[in-house]
Amino acid sequence: MSRIAVDLLGGDGAPAVVVDGALRACRADPDLQLLLVGPPDAADDVRAALPDDQRRRITVRPTGAPGGMAAGTAAEPGTGRADESIRAGMAAAADGAADAFISAGSSGAIVTAAALGLGRWPAVRRPALVVTVPAVAGPVVLLDVGATVEARPATLTQHALFGAAYGAVRLGLDRPRVGLLSIGAEPGKGDRVRRTADALLRSLTLPAAGRYVGLVEGHDVTLGDGIDVVVTDGFTGNVLLKGIEGAYAMAGGPEPGRVAPRAAALLGVAGTVVVCHGAATGADIATGITLAAGLHRGRVTSTVARMLDDITRLIAEQDEVSP
Amino acid sequence: MSRIAVDLLGGDGAPAVVVDGALRACRADPDLQLLLVGPPDAADDVRAALPDDQRRRITVRPTGAPGGMAAGTAAEPGTGRADESIRAGMAAAADGAADAFISAGSSGAIVTAAALGLGRWPAVRRPALVVTVPAVAGPVVLLDVGATVEARPATLTQHALFGAAYGAVRLGLDRPRVGLLSIGAEPGKGDRVRRTADALLRSLTLPAAGRYVGLVEGHDVTLGDGIDVVVTDGFTGNVLLKGIEGAYAMAGGPEPGRVAPRAAALLGVAGTVVVCHGAATGADIATGITLAAGLHRGRVTSTVARMLDDITRLIAEQDEVSP
Repeated sequence: MSRIAVDLLGGDGAPAVVVDGALRACRADPDLQLLLVGPPDAADDVRAALPDDQRRRITVRPTGAPGGMAAGTAAEPGTGRADESIRAGMAAAADGAADAFISAGSSGAIVTAAALGLGRWPAVRRPALVVTVPAVAGPVVLLDVGATVEARPATLTQHALFGAAYGAVRLGLDRPRVGLLSIGAEPGKGDRVRRTADALLRSLTLPAAGRYVGLVEGHDVTLGDGIDVVVTDGFTGNVLLKGIEGAYAMAGGPEPGRVAPRAAALLGVAGTVVVCHGAATGADIATGITLAAGLHRGRVTSTVARMLDDITRLIAEQDEVSP
Repeated sequence: MSRIAVDLLGGDGAPAVVVDGALRACRADPDLQLLLVGPPDAADDVRAALPDDQRRRITVRPTGAPGGMAAGTAAEPGTGRADESIRAGMAAAADGAADAFISAGSSGAIVTAAALGLGRWPAVRRPALVVTVPAVAGPVVLLDVGATVEARPATLTQHALFGAAYGAVRLGLDRPRVGLLSIGAEPGKGDRVRRTADALLRSLTLPAAGRYVGLVEGHDVTLGDGIDVVVTDGFTGNVLLKGIEGAYAMAGGPEPGRVAPRAAALLGVAGTVVVCHGAATGADIATGITLAAGLHRGRVTSTVARMLDDITRLIAEQDEVSP
């Protein structure tokens, strides 16, 4: 059984789209309980649409204006009210009322609330949002897609550790192949941040016996040849992901029914948090809830955190041993 | 009649792929003359494949190792030999032997050789590579896709001028709508560079009565709703373009037979230069030659340069008038 806190006020189409997504997720997965965070009226809509004997699967943590005032109106991204449901959902994940939290609200607000409400992993300053892109040669883990927009070499190398561990735990990858996104595959291609990060990554020990394979390019994320994990800064990753989404929206996905990922897992904070696209549909919200439940059941976030801890300790020991 | 200098040694498949592309371009456009720059043997292959009465359309400017040694082997990107054909082709464009130059070589080497060999436009420090993406709602001009990888607000605002002028001259756009690529459409989204550039662009006079419409996202480049020109730094633009290419390669383009652009025009230098993808096919090289001929015939580069000059003078006058 997974208990997922869901932000009723996140996203352009909230709360209607979230109500739709919550219902879809409940119908698809009988082992799911939802803690709906936001206006009680919207939560009542979810409950009313379920059969009598299913309604106890839905609980509510009210936020925002009391009574009917809050229901039926979309939350403005970045407003205090939208952020209030994010903070309340994060508190539910922190106090144990929920196993995970999912929101289609402003990713900046979610990342901030997660760092404050759940705390960061030891030695982690910058969280990352990670997605799995359905590439031709198999799934490709792409991070960061928007948590940390200012790129620094040390952030990129730490996120390479996140990505390798996530690939191993979530996708079962053995010896994940990690690449750094740049504008050419030959060493030296890219800006100063990439050149420094490339040099750091060449000597870095990666979790799950991962291997750093060097620089990769934008098309490698959708083709996936010889690569399992692609690391970049949150600005570039977000632009790239939305570009791929736009291209697939026009041309159809790589296979019928497969689309670009619409939900991202937040890594680097002590809890399970999923961020959906602001323009999420009901189906996207349901996918996000399913991802959150999958991450909880697979103990993905805590296992990745432990692998990071082990690697950090190993690197520290190697540093002590080396002359 | 257009006389296009073609780098025989640029790209992963050179010179064979360039020979193929040169032939395709010649056959498609009887008003084309080619100055092939590189090993004479490869140039002979082009001539031999043409009918007798067509062979005088092909001339050669030899570079690299003499005789057969250079022919039939791919040029390593970034090697002195590959760069030699770039410098020689640029010299042909500078001395009037050719109206334009096209290469699938290293874009960094081409941009450097163009700045040195042709000179930059007045008041321009950073050239830009510009492509036209076939979006759903019509073509979208995207720049920079790799000429200037370090993003600065002043570079982005100057490239917005380039993009608006190019859209007007090349695509016939009236009042082109210009957006700045970021990770959300609301003001304030993005990194510090984007926030500063967004503020600068709000008060900038654009060529062709262009309008700045604010921040746009990755998917806007393939959808094109309400936008004609998208400005970004060369790192992000290159990654995005290759991501869209990869997605289309998997899923098919937006319409049958339409693909992501494989040739980019260089703006900011005093001449017509086209850069093809390093992994260009013969068809891609032919597309690049056709683009170069079209830019020459439409006097695109010189017209864009003059519009920039006019706008720069207008902005200077406004600055003098204002208190």
